Amino acid sequence: MPAVITKYTVEGMSCGHCVAAVTEEVAKLPGVQQVAVDLPTGAVTVTSDAPLDDDVVRAAVDEAGYQLA
Amino acid sequence: MPAVITKYTVEGMSCGHCVAAVTEEVAKLPGVQQVAVDLPTGAVTVTSDAPLDDDVVRAAVDEAGYQLA
Repeated sequence: MPAVITKYTVEGMSCGHCVAAVTEEVAKLPGVQQVAVDLPTGAVTVTSDAPLDDDVVRAAVDEAGYQLA
Repeated sequence: MPAVITKYTVEGMSCGHCVAAVTEEVAKLPGVQQVAVDLPTGAVTVTSDAPLDDDVVRAAVDEAGYQLA
């Protein structure tokens, strides 16, 4: 199965530490291959083996201390 | 000898992770008893056994990824 690329927007990130925290939590999710965060826009691009459950991604972002837009 | 309280201003902190990074590095310095950071103003109040060398504090803040004003 080809990889699935999903783009989210995360609110509240202000620095590289925030980016690292979000990246770390989302990267832990089952099936996630890659996480790319653009700090200025809050765009988080996730590459995964299969479509992700938005609630699971939302929970991971929340765990990092931020929230999906 | 009574404790010495010194107040610095650190530039560039934007979130709690930044505060934690600065606190951690400054707290490691010899003789430092307590570090209190006020994020909105960048004020870092350091309580130490003896007067601190500004260059040493500056280096610790730099190590954390920020700079003294």
